[in-house]
Amino acid sequence: MTRLRVYDDTKALFHLPDGLIYLDGNSLGALPLGVAERVNRVITEEWGNELIRAWNTAGWYVQPRHVGDRIARLIGAEAGSVMVGDTLSLKVYQALAAALDMTPSRKIVLSDTGNFPTDLYMAEGLIATLGRGHQLRLVAPEEIEGALSDEIAVLYITEVDYRTGRRHDMAKLTARAHALGIVTLWDLAHSAGALPVDLAGSGADFAAGCTYKYLNAGPGAPAFLYVAPRHADSARAALSGWMGHAKPFAFELAYAAAGGVERMRVGTPPVLAMAALEASLDIWDKVDIAEVRARSLALGDLLISEVERHCPQLKLVTPRDHERRGSQVSFAFDGGYAAMQALIARGVIGDFRAPDIMRFGLTPLYVGENEIIRAAEIIEEVISGEVWRRPEYQVVNAVT
Amino acid sequence: MTRLRVYDDTKALFHLPDGLIYLDGNSLGALPLGVAERVNRVITEEWGNELIRAWNTAGWYVQPRHVGDRIARLIGAEAGSVMVGDTLSLKVYQALAAALDMTPSRKIVLSDTGNFPTDLYMAEGLIATLGRGHQLRLVAPEEIEGALSDEIAVLYITEVDYRTGRRHDMAKLTARAHALGIVTLWDLAHSAGALPVDLAGSGADFAAGCTYKYLNAGPGAPAFLYVAPRHADSARAALSGWMGHAKPFAFELAYAAAGGVERMRVGTPPVLAMAALEASLDIWDKVDIAEVRARSLALGDLLISEVERHCPQLKLVTPRDHERRGSQVSFAFDGGYAAMQALIARGVIGDFRAPDIMRFGLTPLYVGENEIIRAAEIIEEVISGEVWRRPEYQVVNAVT
Repeated sequence: MTRLRVYDDTKALFHLPDGLIYLDGNSLGALPLGVAERVNRVITEEWGNELIRAWNTAGWYVQPRHVGDRIARLIGAEAGSVMVGDTLSLKVYQALAAALDMTPSRKIVLSDTGNFPTDLYMAEGLIATLGRGHQLRLVAPEEIEGALSDEIAVLYITEVDYRTGRRHDMAKLTARAHALGIVTLWDLAHSAGALPVDLAGSGADFAAGCTYKYLNAGPGAPAFLYVAPRHADSARAALSGWMGHAKPFAFELAYAAAGGVERMRVGTPPVLAMAALEASLDIWDKVDIAEVRARSLALGDLLISEVERHCPQLKLVTPRDHERRGSQVSFAFDGGYAAMQALIARGVIGDFRAPDIMRFGLTPLYVGENEIIRAAEIIEEVISGEVWRRPEYQVVNAVT
Repeated sequence: MTRLRVYDDTKALFHLPDGLIYLDGNSLGALPLGVAERVNRVITEEWGNELIRAWNTAGWYVQPRHVGDRIARLIGAEAGSVMVGDTLSLKVYQALAAALDMTPSRKIVLSDTGNFPTDLYMAEGLIATLGRGHQLRLVAPEEIEGALSDEIAVLYITEVDYRTGRRHDMAKLTARAHALGIVTLWDLAHSAGALPVDLAGSGADFAAGCTYKYLNAGPGAPAFLYVAPRHADSARAALSGWMGHAKPFAFELAYAAAGGVERMRVGTPPVLAMAALEASLDIWDKVDIAEVRARSLALGDLLISEVERHCPQLKLVTPRDHERRGSQVSFAFDGGYAAMQALIARGVIGDFRAPDIMRFGLTPLYVGENEIIRAAEIIEEVISGEVWRRPEYQVVNAVT
């Protein structure tokens, strides 16, 4: 397989509107050119002509684990340990349910205030359903290590903070957690495709992530779930759907979990969305995530230095230290919402996260130095020129 | 809106391979011609050009409830009572969790052995997670009414049996259940788009269904969930994801359920699959489900009489009574698996369900009398000619 050089070879493989600088690939990745044709082929040839037979002839049934193996390479996971399907909310729910089952005498789920809210909400729902006195304990991200103790059942955090881009040390926290008998569950939403992840090497127990951000698989693309092979044959599947049954087509009345991560399948897989994901992975299969990482850090350093030089009003909230940074750069600014609207109107698309964070995602497959330099100029125009104060940028949209 | 005549106007709106007689639309519906273009437009114009902005500009965020309203019309549901997303397995899990929360002093979930296995499996998983001594009680479908009592918490059944096509009386069973203080949860997998459903009129509490069968939305298309408006503001959302939060974009640390059925959203909606569903509903919006039903029953009567006349070896397991029949005709036959392989090899696609059921789905939007007559001839050739005994038809596929 020919290796693709990041940006130099890969930028041409994406569709981006002329003149747009897209720094929101950490929310929704750009469109790989191969997607439309791949999805169209699945619709017209597989669904249209093969119809129900395509579950066998086109491999729809086995696709979730095959695609899982392609993602596994990007996150340092063992072959056969990753299953694709559903949404990230549901995948963390499955994993947390399994993890709590492994530690019945402990009642604390430890997370941090930088975890993405849906993870916290799903945990709340699970804890209420369990009704066994579990407690979701939230501390500040920097207090996580100190909060580990032998009363914690599960360490349940997102590696890279969706607001600040601050990155946890997965290997260190996992080792420390294991020494205390704590099961670990990592959300990789802002890690997969953003930076090298070493699930197997760090010894993580469970992990989940989405594919519509850095993996560029499209809006509402399916999520993935990692279960460490040492747990996969014993982890309880709380969402015990028929596709995770040992013999789904025997239509037995009683549930019996399939072996391995296969048990974490639930219902019918989203075949059209899976086609888009496969087309996107055709690019990822050929790039080196270490090269992506090096470029991302360089782009981040450049954006930080340009913005700090011209816009002292913006306060950097992303760690400067490479080891502690994900693949985004965020600034706090009181007028952040309006400023982001003004930037978007000028073709620089980042996004805003309450209460005051302006986020800029760095996706080196299709964003390079020139885009960052130009974006910084426009940020300066909006901030220093006080363009963001104009009334038209104060209107709040339904979805930001 | 111009009304479309069922079959006469609608058959041309589907792609079907030449010479194929497709009697498996109860498993995966045929491809509506409008799907490929619609999905392509969402990929290239909305995702490709609008990128993250499409959540607002293309209405992605509000789509699940808008599409829910289009489905509501087909199942007799109130506007604003149906939410689209996830899979049917997950939607029955959500509904069952909410239903059990409404009846805390009762511990029995009543279902029948004709319920689709994933419903039973998901209930098993939920009951284990709840850990409060609930029990899933299974009786034969014909014993359901007699098994209703004031110890039952939830009546949890599929209206139309996936194997036999036997239909429960939703209005009668719901009324009887309510008289005993039982909450009702109906699986409409083989009802939505197959026959008129009157959720509001029958007083059902919860219902869920899929869109890849009679609704023709494609493999892995999203499911829907109905919550009766009288419960929608109080039903507990056990799968409490951020999209069901009252203020999802406030990114608060604590969960607060949105009002109404909106709380039953979980994660990011599957936008590409939703586009296929919308294209499919463009046809459904213009047909009268009563006309679909009349045609379906006539096709079923025809298939039964033709097969019984020529193939006495096949034993009808579908009720002859129109009131008690869904939109499929099934026969028990010991060589059913092999016979179905032989039929498929001859271009008549039905399917097989263990242990011995040959199923033929009736989808009048694209199946008419001529197809049924020709299918019956080929069935006769395979059965009476003993073609099914050939060794090549004994090989079992991974997915049937």
